[in-house]
Amino acid sequence: MHILVCNDDGIDAPGIYALAQELKSIAKVTVIAPDRQQSAVGHAITMQSPLRVVEFRKDGEFFGYAVKGTPADAVKLGVKCLLQEPVDLCVSGINHGSNTAINIIYSGTVSAATEGTVLGIPSIAMSLTTYAEWDFGVAARFAKKLALEVMKRGLPPGTLLNVNVPAVPEGEIKGVKVTKQGISSWADTFDRRRDPAGREYFWLTGTMDVTDTDPETDQLAIQAGYISVTPVHYQLTDEVQRGVMQGWGLW
Amino acid sequence: MHILVCNDDGIDAPGIYALAQELKSIAKVTVIAPDRQQSAVGHAITMQSPLRVVEFRKDGEFFGYAVKGTPADAVKLGVKCLLQEPVDLCVSGINHGSNTAINIIYSGTVSAATEGTVLGIPSIAMSLTTYAEWDFGVAARFAKKLALEVMKRGLPPGTLLNVNVPAVPEGEIKGVKVTKQGISSWADTFDRRRDPAGREYFWLTGTMDVTDTDPETDQLAIQAGYISVTPVHYQLTDEVQRGVMQGWGLW
Repeated sequence: MHILVCNDDGIDAPGIYALAQELKSIAKVTVIAPDRQQSAVGHAITMQSPLRVVEFRKDGEFFGYAVKGTPADAVKLGVKCLLQEPVDLCVSGINHGSNTAINIIYSGTVSAATEGTVLGIPSIAMSLTTYAEWDFGVAARFAKKLALEVMKRGLPPGTLLNVNVPAVPEGEIKGVKVTKQGISSWADTFDRRRDPAGREYFWLTGTMDVTDTDPETDQLAIQAGYISVTPVHYQLTDEVQRGVMQGWGLW
Repeated sequence: MHILVCNDDGIDAPGIYALAQELKSIAKVTVIAPDRQQSAVGHAITMQSPLRVVEFRKDGEFFGYAVKGTPADAVKLGVKCLLQEPVDLCVSGINHGSNTAINIIYSGTVSAATEGTVLGIPSIAMSLTTYAEWDFGVAARFAKKLALEVMKRGLPPGTLLNVNVPAVPEGEIKGVKVTKQGISSWADTFDRRRDPAGREYFWLTGTMDVTDTDPETDQLAIQAGYISVTPVHYQLTDEVQRGVMQGWGLW
């Protein structure tokens, strides 16, 4: 088995190291990831400029390929150009911070797994739900378990698994819930500031505004202490509204 | 009525100018758009660096606000910070090039409309299906017609309209189809080149591999000469797979 590991926190992040090390016990692992922090890049791909790749070493040993681009770039370039042998599974993460509810559409971590899916590879996005320093061990071991399960059972074409592991001590995890994407969104604000030269600039800030009430959502499963696994696809058509609009008479 | 106009081709693109001019006949229009080409940025938002805004003039007159950021940044910053009065409708485009099938997830044009939707504003993404020089008049007039219809009838929360207008003479347009997102994807390749200093770089290239067979898809509606209107939402849960996975026993 050959697993491609990517992330959006950058190839030097602790989460991708923990993930790669754990997966090496069950498969050949190739790491291809952005050379720097790429959070919230969504499904950006680089078309206006070229991509560059360098070998990244950790503790004196080759660890993976660092791509000067987005998470989706890294996966696409890896599969289509850098790798000689087929990829059986793509695992992205472990992200430092949760990717639930509306965050799925902004997430570079999910985007890397999405690109794997677009390329026909079963894919998993892994996140740990804290920005604080935390041990990635539980999330890494769950990634391994889920990877084996996915290799055994497969995933439908176009569907990836978005996983969030709660940042609680291992013994306090209540179990695993197969969830749906929540509806919670951000209460955004912009800090309006002036730079040393007196010019105005704006910095995005905000907090997640948890409006979910359904315990089957990713957001509430996490809060209740469960590992959340959401099957995510990109068939974006709103079929109900499509039916409604047949009566609009737009021509 | 107050319409926010955005795009991903940059505030100086001909498509946004045609769109803004046409919409001014039915509403107050505010233009807030990236200061440069931002195609294929997906739903990227800028969190690692500040945003800056400058007033952009066209033919000696104020045209709109140019944001040094992504399409989603422009909409978010506009609604949350720059504009004093509420926005009734967000229209993104007119993109120079189609946004159908898998392209929806890469598209900055769609992403701007998505951000409008996330902020609770009915939103429309407009694209013209050619990269060649072409008159944006037909697409702009259809945008106006659809804007009036959306203001009258509303859209469900979380659903936007993704519109593609075929690049054919106006008399050859067959009508409007309310479509579903196609499944066609890209046959990607990377050009592997060397820069003048001998260092390797990679440039993404490729063509759309049209695999759709359902005439109700955006891709085939366009090819048949129809304006395609797809209602798009971001409830990404694959409910079928969710049911399947309840039996996986992941804990």
